[in-house]
Amino acid sequence: MIVVLKKNPDEKQLNNLMAWLKSLNISIHESAGDIHTILGLVGDTTMVDIDLLRALDIVVDVKRVQEPYKNANRKFHEEDTVVPVGNTQIGGGVFSVIAGPCSIESEEQISLVATAVKAAGATMLRGGAFKPRTSPYAFQGLRGHGLELLLIAKKLTGLPVVTEIMDLSQLHLFDDVDVIQVGARNMQNFELLKELGHTNKPILLKRGLANTLQELLMSAEYIMAGGNNQVILCERGIRTFETAARNTLDLAAIPLLKRMTHLPIIVDPSHATGISALVKPMSLAATAAGADGLMIEVHNDPKRALCDGAQSLTPTAFQDVMNGVRAILPYAYQMSKEEKQ
Amino acid sequence: MIVVLKKNPDEKQLNNLMAWLKSLNISIHESAGDIHTILGLVGDTTMVDIDLLRALDIVVDVKRVQEPYKNANRKFHEEDTVVPVGNTQIGGGVFSVIAGPCSIESEEQISLVATAVKAAGATMLRGGAFKPRTSPYAFQGLRGHGLELLLIAKKLTGLPVVTEIMDLSQLHLFDDVDVIQVGARNMQNFELLKELGHTNKPILLKRGLANTLQELLMSAEYIMAGGNNQVILCERGIRTFETAARNTLDLAAIPLLKRMTHLPIIVDPSHATGISALVKPMSLAATAAGADGLMIEVHNDPKRALCDGAQSLTPTAFQDVMNGVRAILPYAYQMSKEEKQ
Amino acid sequence: MIVVLKKNPDEKQLNNLMAWLKSLNISIHESAGDIHTILGLVGDTTMVDIDLLRALDIVVDVKRVQEPYKNANRKFHEEDTVVPVGNTQIGGGVFSVIAGPCSIESEEQISLVATAVKAAGATMLRGGAFKPRTSPYAFQGLRGHGLELLLIAKKLTGLPVVTEIMDLSQLHLFDDVDVIQVGARNMQNFELLKELGHTNKPILLKRGLANTLQELLMSAEYIMAGGNNQVILCERGIRTFETAARNTLDLAAIPLLKRMTHLPIIVDPSHATGISALVKPMSLAATAAGADGLMIEVHNDPKRALCDGAQSLTPTAFQDVMNGVRAILPYAYQMSKEEKQ
Amino acid sequence: MIVVLKKNPDEKQLNNLMAWLKSLNISIHESAGDIHTILGLVGDTTMVDIDLLRALDIVVDVKRVQEPYKNANRKFHEEDTVVPVGNTQIGGGVFSVIAGPCSIESEEQISLVATAVKAAGATMLRGGAFKPRTSPYAFQGLRGHGLELLLIAKKLTGLPVVTEIMDLSQLHLFDDVDVIQVGARNMQNFELLKELGHTNKPILLKRGLANTLQELLMSAEYIMAGGNNQVILCERGIRTFETAARNTLDLAAIPLLKRMTHLPIIVDPSHATGISALVKPMSLAATAAGADGLMIEVHNDPKRALCDGAQSLTPTAFQDVMNGVRAILPYAYQMSKEEKQ
Repeated sequence: MIVVLKKNPDEKQLNNLMAWLKSLNISIHESAGDIHTILGLVGDTTMVDIDLLRALDIVVDVKRVQEPYKNANRKFHEEDTVVPVGNTQIGGGVFSVIAGPCSIESEEQISLVATAVKAAGATMLRGGAFKPRTSPYAFQGLRGHGLELLLIAKKLTGLPVVTEIMDLSQLHLFDDVDVIQVGARNMQNFELLKELGHTNKPILLKRGLANTLQELLMSAEYIMAGGNNQVILCERGIRTFETAARNTLDLAAIPLLKRMTHLPIIVDPSHATGISALVKPMSLAATAAGADGLMIEVHNDPKRALCDGAQSLTPTAFQDVMNGVRAILPYAYQMSKEEKQ
Repeated sequence: MIVVLKKNPDEKQLNNLMAWLKSLNISIHESAGDIHTILGLVGDTTMVDIDLLRALDIVVDVKRVQEPYKNANRKFHEEDTVVPVGNTQIGGGVFSVIAGPCSIESEEQISLVATAVKAAGATMLRGGAFKPRTSPYAFQGLRGHGLELLLIAKKLTGLPVVTEIMDLSQLHLFDDVDVIQVGARNMQNFELLKELGHTNKPILLKRGLANTLQELLMSAEYIMAGGNNQVILCERGIRTFETAARNTLDLAAIPLLKRMTHLPIIVDPSHATGISALVKPMSLAATAAGADGLMIEVHNDPKRALCDGAQSLTPTAFQDVMNGVRAILPYAYQMSKEEKQ
Repeated sequence: MIVVLKKNPDEKQLNNLMAWLKSLNISIHESAGDIHTILGLVGDTTMVDIDLLRALDIVVDVKRVQEPYKNANRKFHEEDTVVPVGNTQIGGGVFSVIAGPCSIESEEQISLVATAVKAAGATMLRGGAFKPRTSPYAFQGLRGHGLELLLIAKKLTGLPVVTEIMDLSQLHLFDDVDVIQVGARNMQNFELLKELGHTNKPILLKRGLANTLQELLMSAEYIMAGGNNQVILCERGIRTFETAARNTLDLAAIPLLKRMTHLPIIVDPSHATGISALVKPMSLAATAAGADGLMIEVHNDPKRALCDGAQSLTPTAFQDVMNGVRAILPYAYQMSKEEKQ
Repeated sequence: MIVVLKKNPDEKQLNNLMAWLKSLNISIHESAGDIHTILGLVGDTTMVDIDLLRALDIVVDVKRVQEPYKNANRKFHEEDTVVPVGNTQIGGGVFSVIAGPCSIESEEQISLVATAVKAAGATMLRGGAFKPRTSPYAFQGLRGHGLELLLIAKKLTGLPVVTEIMDLSQLHLFDDVDVIQVGARNMQNFELLKELGHTNKPILLKRGLANTLQELLMSAEYIMAGGNNQVILCERGIRTFETAARNTLDLAAIPLLKRMTHLPIIVDPSHATGISALVKPMSLAATAAGADGLMIEVHNDPKRALCDGAQSLTPTAFQDVMNGVRAILPYAYQMSKEEKQ
């Protein structure tokens, strides 16, 4: 951590600062310039409150050199994390495709879709039971009953299931769910993250619409700090000024995150774009850029889907995407061993 | 609601669409052009899922004419909402100033700050007990004990208190709190909003960092749909590309929201800018633009504050802001009666 | 175009509006609702000023159904545009790779790089002579002399050359340049665009950092309205809140633009990310998503490049990117015939 | 400037870096940590290319401590700059109000508006002759003839005039114009800025829609580096995800810029919001926040304005804004002497 001080800082305040830093077991290298004096802080600065430092009268600016996340940091954990899920895994060379409807609507629907996506090559089944909807008047999901239907489809197909939790109070219903999804709007629901850190379930953590990659990793760190290292990151588009698609899918996040962290990264082109015709090209692009998997909405009848129908694929269209992904996969980007170090 | 259809839409699909809309008690006006046919939907379209319409093969585009919020809508509720809080109120011509420390740290601290902000003219006391922090390693607030200390300061000064809830499970601790704050990161925590709609407490709802004004009103609608109309909106900056301040304070939100809704609107210049030197100019600007109040961080010793110290004012600086605000208040913008209709 | 009117609009103003629209040869379909009356305007609405309509007292909202661009519009020009350049072309099934240094520095440098990128498979040579730099104290390019050196490298290798114009007054120097580049900061330099519309040179038009796809097409329309249809669009990242890379590369722009327009689309991963390690994964992703080509910075010694060195590849690294691109190309996304109609 | 080096940097590369920096008369303070070594560069680092440094293999990160602008920097020029314009001035305690129509349409129109805004208290007249329009099919301004009409209105009222230049080639027509405006889209038209640096005219420089405050000052630096210090900055809204108003007016830019620079700052609420009803509240807010002036669109008949009518005020509404501004002005924010140092 680097602290830039004002010209001629008040002696007493400077001594206070030095004493406080030393009490945190941080050693200090000072270099005085004509205009500013620069302090280089060496040691474990994870616990230093950067806002507090900035608040000091004698401080002009503070800059972290070391990242504020540890457990999620590639620097301290060179090997890629692999998350085992049922009879499959996420990361470690297995390309995961999580497919299914936005909302679970009926036993027939989820069973039909589950069977279709399995046939097309999906490795996991997704389906929403608790649905975060912008409007209180929109369909909010089948909730507990939806989870039951999802588990029927799991039994039917053998596919592990992924579904979203919206509140801590729902956690007891997720015992037989394979992967718990934290949605973009809950990425910084810190009470939820802390509690999920005490479970032994894989957590699929979606990037918030206005969150940086560093913030995404800080949220992963919340889960990991509780002892649960099975975190899967998911890029699903960020909010920008462009309105031609629902959000702006940030595919550079894949190689950037691969450098920052050892956690697996998947991409959700359905929610990112909100347009079914964009799911295929963006799936191919995400695959080529080195993603560990995809999350794709598939519906037996997109025109009747109770939510997000505009972005769902038919099973036939999904099969076509899978064919494309499989063709590209052998030539996809892979970070070299040297870059991981 | 307006639906733009493709050229020569499939007859059967069009009939299906028409039948479905009629089943929702919506009447349809059709106008056929050379390239597109346009349907004008008339009736209560709040329940129509716009994404579902967009998903239809024969539909090119859909546009809402009527807003998707009702209870919060100025059109259906011309008079400004006034929220009574203890011995004071928010809205209705009373300018509210909610001041206090970011985090409650000790009985001495909160008592000192409470006394100081009361003396300077604050109408309510704020103080954080449950703190949403980006890092799991940062101070997370005194939690339940913090609430107890806040209530001691309430008793001492008579000021009503405002404090943030982070999770549903904390709600039972808020019985003696006057206003429950929903933070920016929880603006779309819909399970929390629904539950708060069943309380009879005033709710201070902060705008999310990446949320539009319409989304803010949809979140207010969640609370109001449950029966609780005591919602206070709070503009606290949005996330943009500019990094000179922490966020970009969107003051045009004040007159825009005044047109869209009857709910009171306050502004938090402390969190919006993250820089104590900007609190005064932005407080004056928010007052001039017609805000119903301000929320300002004040600390007895900003250099020692456990969080967000960079944006806190000393009691003396807060007194100076209050003097400025009082001078400007008589000349502040007020929407005319005609504009409210 | 759809015009939403206020409830009970003033009769006289409505008649004025109707008369004005009819004078523009636009026919009007009216549908009256309980709250709003909706006008559907049919005919050539390209010339209707949407801001002017919105300004009218009786108008609540206006929405374009038809795009405001014509020449660039896929709807009126189904076939993909192919731009011939020297012995090659852009679009029409040829994958173009435009490579070279950010700045031309010396005859030796540009000749070395040109030879290297040709050997690796580049189809065109790029090199900056006029350099838009944020700081007046930074290197501004070799200007006229740089163009001379670029033409020497063109003669040496036979590669067509692409280079940026910064001002109309430089146009006479571009006679032997094959493709004139308009940089992101000049995307809405309308005087420059108009003049380029009167040349017979292919124009490589880069998307501005804060410009929508529709605005990009409107700028293409400026060039095409002057009679020059040889426009190549270039996605090069937009400015968002994320700072992990220089800009956010918007790859969904490729399939979106393919739907909106018949013009070829290339991608510049070097400027978009500003990080050399991201050039390969983003090149593969852009290829997979269906781009017509790439624009890549290559330098013989990136560590000594006078500008933008951080994003330049060595010839060896560029060769590696080319190998990856060639492997993916056969499996890249292609829009179907039906989607083009 | 601070340079963070990799652990165990290559000795030879480090020596090269050191030698290069010393050749630029920069002295270096080194502090070695467990993970990183930090170099503090002291001296005039304005000329150091930060991108070049970042490109070096041994460099992890670089951070400027000193701003990259000098002439515009408050640190090197404590006193506020005052720009004399005809019989008035901008900055130095005079509150400037620049009012007039978006486009000059006829002698009668510009004369009527000029007389009206003068009567209401405007200190300068604005009017567009060269109009940057997104569509090539929209009205492009009366151009040279428009300038003639503007000068007639100047003679009639005695008001100094402000009008926009779009291209270098138009400069010879601006001899009798008092202030030359550089529009938001040309903020980084560096060739134009350089040339304006060689004139002796005051330049009104508008912030680009996606430009940071530092970039705005770098563009001012381009003009000042040429010898022309008469630069007036103008905040006019930035592009964000919010679409309720045309752009997001960033009023914190006023006190932030006051700290960064000595140049005067005015605000354009008309273009920033694009909505006439927001001009008054945002004018009051900008005044309260400490702006040196306002730029407001006024039209004799907004409903017939050829462009931007939606944001224009009638002379009566403008008079009302002026009354409000005058009432607030005595209580507006002023930066203290100490803060300027």
